[in-house]
Amino acid sequence: MGNLTLYSMPSSGNSYKARLLLALLGQDYVHVGMEYETSELAEAHAKGKLPLGKLPVLELADGTQIPESNAILCYLGDGTDWFPTAAVVRAHVLGWMFWEQNQHEGVIAVRAALLKYESRAHLATPERLAELLEAGHGLLGQMNDHLANQDWFVGDRPTIADISLYAYTHSAATKGGFDLDRFDAVREWIDCIAAMPGYVGLDDIPE
Amino acid sequence: MGNLTLYSMPSSGNSYKARLLLALLGQDYVHVGMEYETSELAEAHAKGKLPLGKLPVLELADGTQIPESNAILCYLGDGTDWFPTAAVVRAHVLGWMFWEQNQHEGVIAVRAALLKYESRAHLATPERLAELLEAGHGLLGQMNDHLANQDWFVGDRPTIADISLYAYTHSAATKGGFDLDRFDAVREWIDCIAAMPGYVGLDDIPE
Repeated sequence: MGNLTLYSMPSSGNSYKARLLLALLGQDYVHVGMEYETSELAEAHAKGKLPLGKLPVLELADGTQIPESNAILCYLGDGTDWFPTAAVVRAHVLGWMFWEQNQHEGVIAVRAALLKYESRAHLATPERLAELLEAGHGLLGQMNDHLANQDWFVGDRPTIADISLYAYTHSAATKGGFDLDRFDAVREWIDCIAAMPGYVGLDDIPE
Repeated sequence: MGNLTLYSMPSSGNSYKARLLLALLGQDYVHVGMEYETSELAEAHAKGKLPLGKLPVLELADGTQIPESNAILCYLGDGTDWFPTAAVVRAHVLGWMFWEQNQHEGVIAVRAALLKYESRAHLATPERLAELLEAGHGLLGQMNDHLANQDWFVGDRPTIADISLYAYTHSAATKGGFDLDRFDAVREWIDCIAAMPGYVGLDDIPE
């Protein structure tokens, strides 16, 4: 795949998706970390270096930039077993990934961010936190129901849909205050991903 | 593509994406409409007939269901010029579509829904409406900057990224109260899509 550079936010689940798949693929890359609320990130924004204004961004050897975490997973997964080519299977993989960005991330990741960042503390009202808690348990319940009958989100092996959903789910209890104990199938699935050869954790940041 | 059935919500931009691409492709299909806040929709939910709990859902001849509007666009566009196969081009198309679900839809469509539905009126506080207005103008500005240099979102012809972004953008002024007059390039792009052979509008619901 040539020389790859990943611009990523060490603490962010979206950035972690790309780091995790790169590690599972055994793909070398240069890691450039830019943390939230730092001058480095502000400067990159100001200089227009981040297409769509977000991290992660994957930069190819020729300088082409690919933004959006799930689009990066599609690019990296293409041609591997992580992104099957059969039309219906692919549509189901993408369906879960769009659901992740539209439903899951805006609740599970957002509650964690409200609890973490000073700059968002004014938005973290008891009502809002309670609303996100209830919504998040609903979403985790949907995932749990789906995983009650199968080991992976789509088909009989892990795909980029699992990587995408894992990023914010595995830390939903520790960072977001969600009760994962209620969701046995989700916890088993989390354990299976963490046991994969090449697995790296959210805090395993490349040098 | 065989016999297709689309379960769609007539008033919804997400459902409109699928209806628009099917029309542009000249693809016949059976349309089953279920409107928001109706007993038909509640019943479909209760019976578990909607995977991921949302509309639209595309049903194939063999009964296989494909949920998520943008995943339906990928499925229908696959093998056509609407979804180019070159890896980087495809990643950019998907990138805009993930952005649409993660950033755009949660602001542009949500403001329109807050203004429309009685059941959400309690959430439509002046502060929330003002916040969404400002955020939406920021997103429309990002789209306008991008379209200032090119006719379509990715490459030199329309793709499913354009269809995806068009659905809630073209009605952003009339339904969401956003000021599209500020965004010349976006308005031109809207006009180009509406001029395509086979185009159907949001209110052109199949019988």
